[in-house]
Amino acid sequence: MARQEKETGGVEWRITLGDGSSKSLVPETGPVSRVWMGLKSLIAGFVLKVWKFLKKAWDIGVDDPRKVIHCLKVGMALTVVSLVYFTRPLYEGVGGNAMWAIMTVVVVFENTVGATISKSLNRVFGTTLAGFLAFGVHWVASLSGHKFEPVVIGASVFLLASAATFSRFIPSVKARFDYGALIFILTFSLVAVSGYRVEELFDLAHQRLSTIIIGTSLCVLVTMLICPIWAGQELNALISRNMDKLADSLDGCVEEYFDHNGELEDSDKQPGKNLIGYKCVLNSKTTEESMTNFARWEPAHGRFNFKHPWKQYLKIGASMRSCAYSIEALNNCVDSENQAPESIKKHLSNICLKVSSNSSCVIKELAKTIKTLKKSSSIDFLVEEMSDAVQDLQNEIKSLPNLLRPAELLLPKSKETEKTASPIYLLEVIPVVILVSLLIETSSRIQDIVKTVEELANAAEFKAEDDDKAKQNQANMNRIVPSQQDDDRQTEKALERV
Amino acid sequence: MARQEKETGGVEWRITLGDGSSKSLVPETGPVSRVWMGLKSLIAGFVLKVWKFLKKAWDIGVDDPRKVIHCLKVGMALTVVSLVYFTRPLYEGVGGNAMWAIMTVVVVFENTVGATISKSLNRVFGTTLAGFLAFGVHWVASLSGHKFEPVVIGASVFLLASAATFSRFIPSVKARFDYGALIFILTFSLVAVSGYRVEELFDLAHQRLSTIIIGTSLCVLVTMLICPIWAGQELNALISRNMDKLADSLDGCVEEYFDHNGELEDSDKQPGKNLIGYKCVLNSKTTEESMTNFARWEPAHGRFNFKHPWKQYLKIGASMRSCAYSIEALNNCVDSENQAPESIKKHLSNICLKVSSNSSCVIKELAKTIKTLKKSSSIDFLVEEMSDAVQDLQNEIKSLPNLLRPAELLLPKSKETEKTASPIYLLEVIPVVILVSLLIETSSRIQDIVKTVEELANAAEFKAEDDDKAKQNQANMNRIVPSQQDDDRQTEKALERV
Repeated sequence: MARQEKETGGVEWRITLGDGSSKSLVPETGPVSRVWMGLKSLIAGFVLKVWKFLKKAWDIGVDDPRKVIHCLKVGMALTVVSLVYFTRPLYEGVGGNAMWAIMTVVVVFENTVGATISKSLNRVFGTTLAGFLAFGVHWVASLSGHKFEPVVIGASVFLLASAATFSRFIPSVKARFDYGALIFILTFSLVAVSGYRVEELFDLAHQRLSTIIIGTSLCVLVTMLICPIWAGQELNALISRNMDKLADSLDGCVEEYFDHNGELEDSDKQPGKNLIGYKCVLNSKTTEESMTNFARWEPAHGRFNFKHPWKQYLKIGASMRSCAYSIEALNNCVDSENQAPESIKKHLSNICLKVSSNSSCVIKELAKTIKTLKKSSSIDFLVEEMSDAVQDLQNEIKSLPNLLRPAELLLPKSKETEKTASPIYLLEVIPVVILVSLLIETSSRIQDIVKTVEELANAAEFKAEDDDKAKQNQANMNRIVPSQQDDDRQTEKALERV
Repeated sequence: MARQEKETGGVEWRITLGDGSSKSLVPETGPVSRVWMGLKSLIAGFVLKVWKFLKKAWDIGVDDPRKVIHCLKVGMALTVVSLVYFTRPLYEGVGGNAMWAIMTVVVVFENTVGATISKSLNRVFGTTLAGFLAFGVHWVASLSGHKFEPVVIGASVFLLASAATFSRFIPSVKARFDYGALIFILTFSLVAVSGYRVEELFDLAHQRLSTIIIGTSLCVLVTMLICPIWAGQELNALISRNMDKLADSLDGCVEEYFDHNGELEDSDKQPGKNLIGYKCVLNSKTTEESMTNFARWEPAHGRFNFKHPWKQYLKIGASMRSCAYSIEALNNCVDSENQAPESIKKHLSNICLKVSSNSSCVIKELAKTIKTLKKSSSIDFLVEEMSDAVQDLQNEIKSLPNLLRPAELLLPKSKETEKTASPIYLLEVIPVVILVSLLIETSSRIQDIVKTVEELANAAEFKAEDDDKAKQNQANMNRIVPSQQDDDRQTEKALERV
């Protein structure tokens, strides 16, 4: 018996997955202990769920510590504004409306400086405008006699609330003044309706506005002074990071295609991760748009002027997405079942890899341009190199039939075999030809990115690169091309000024 | 002189674009009138801007009258809630906190029912939870003595506000409880801090909660009873509409490719509009996600159950986007400079058009399935037809070299001409081969859409089509395939039950 029990126990230990709840499977347990076990596993499941949630939260915090800092900033701002309540003199200065300061901090404090400023200005101007209008309506209502007062106020609330709500559907308003319209409706209704009760309307409005200004100023100060996160800087970094991902995807994709059964199999995970980097580009449109909107509210910061052409980043983003579409198509070639024979792949491998590496060099140089906000001295050279490689690839494709011919010539020269052999060759070549044409398409789209980045560089007046390498390049050019000396002198002067 | 003036006037009338401000160009005017003219044109410009803005707003309203209805609903709800203030008995019932009802209506009222319910529940539960917690903190603070009271409250505000702000970064929380977390912070701070001043904390909280419940109930009632816009219905319509657009784009794209210089030139605008329809699919990810989130809050409505598998729509959307990517690539083929010779195009035209029209038929049938929420009786047949057409196309491509050969054979048979002539043929074929391979790729992606829609049909238990046509189909099948009679009887029973 003892042995059997031991055996059963042994078997069951092997079946259950070692989470400690294996005892429930022992047949000798009564109903009470079974309920107890069920309860225990329920609690364990709940604890596990909470634990997973906390782990996820922890990962998010570790992944981007600035999010944690943002949370501490919100906590700090709220605690500071609570002092308005705690310290009596300040409290009496702004009346019972000090809660508006707290509300303002909670609602207005956003992750980036631009978003906070945008919401603050929207709140202040929405409140002011609505306050004035509500005054006017209140005045008209008081003139129209006691009987019509509620009618006038009700009608004005109905009309203005409807109109302001409708304005939120207009894209240009929605992008910049959505919150302002909301606050406008809120304040107008509150002031118009409460004006009907409270007599000291002016005092009320004055107090409310001053508390809101206290709240927004505090938010703007905290968000700008303590570890500020600038929407503009984030946008710039996002675009530059996405470009790097695009370059890695392109490289990884073409490499994987030509090394499909080859040496890269060990580091299988690594290229897999790189390969899907372009998907970030496909999915970042909304982020780019909101960042651009916020960046336009920000003052000059770091290396960015107030008038930095943020809208140009949207164009760059669009051209990057267009490039990402063709990388998506390239990626499908890699996953496709139809693959060209190894011999043809091997033949085209070097030139294709050259095109892809030259293309990704161009993208990476653009990423560097955006990251450093300096005009690249080598971009023209890199683009030319890419175009040359593309030209070589096109020539190679043109001579591809020559490659096929010898094999065909080896076959007996009857027309029938020619007919049957040749189609297979053509068909076999097609997958690699498609890859090549997509590669060429990609490189032409990269030139669009180059154009949009150039437009940015001109609009934002990027300075030329001033590292030693650039100087050396300039010096070399001076020696080689004397006619360019005027230009170069200007560049040198610019460098001296820096 | 008189004649000259007339002449000048005549010339200038021709130069200016007839907007009535042509007088400013007459040289005889003095500085005062010039200023006057400048001011006039400035005002005219401003009026024009306002006019344009109003025109845009009008277009938006005409384009989707439900937006106007939504605005009127908001206005109505706000006016109704103002009655809480106007009628004294109700006013005294909820105390001075009636403004919370107004605020709730302004903030909670959203375009769709789901969004309104989501915000309402978030607001009510956020407020309740925060209220209870604030009570607890207040109690602990009052126990800890007068000196430590502010410290305890300050610390708790700091900690909870930080934690709640952080929770808004966690995707699962952000998607459903973002607004709740915001309201939690707001209420907790207000109650905790004001609890330090006001003694009747319980009354305050009770009043505030009841006003919020009045506000949210009003919003939910108005949004559900007056011309409701259900997020679920919208999502369903969006997906179905996007599918139609996808089908039109595919059709239009392939037609344009083969009729590039052909008969379609008259209706140039029409296909152009159809062609870019697929871009809507590429850009609708964010909309789909938010709609899905809102739809999950909605009760059963129209033909949708409460447990309708809304998440499946995200999968359908993803498979549609994947299909749209390859239509984007197809579209590039159409715009490409390299075009295959007309003879080859003509040869492949019919079969390619057949594949594209069969494919778009499948998509349109899927769109109908989603629109009507009924299982299609013909989808299997249509998919098979599409596969057959694809198979035919593949065979056609395999025999393409045979088509090239006769021309080659007509040339003198020296090896040199063979070498130079043949490459040109291969290269010329490439553009059309790429188009064909993309077409095949597209049709395989359409099969993914079919799969995801089938999953939806199974999960949501769509009924079979019950129109006469379906019955007829079934009857025909009965006659032809006796072995399927069991299945058919079940279908007939199902039809009878309907």
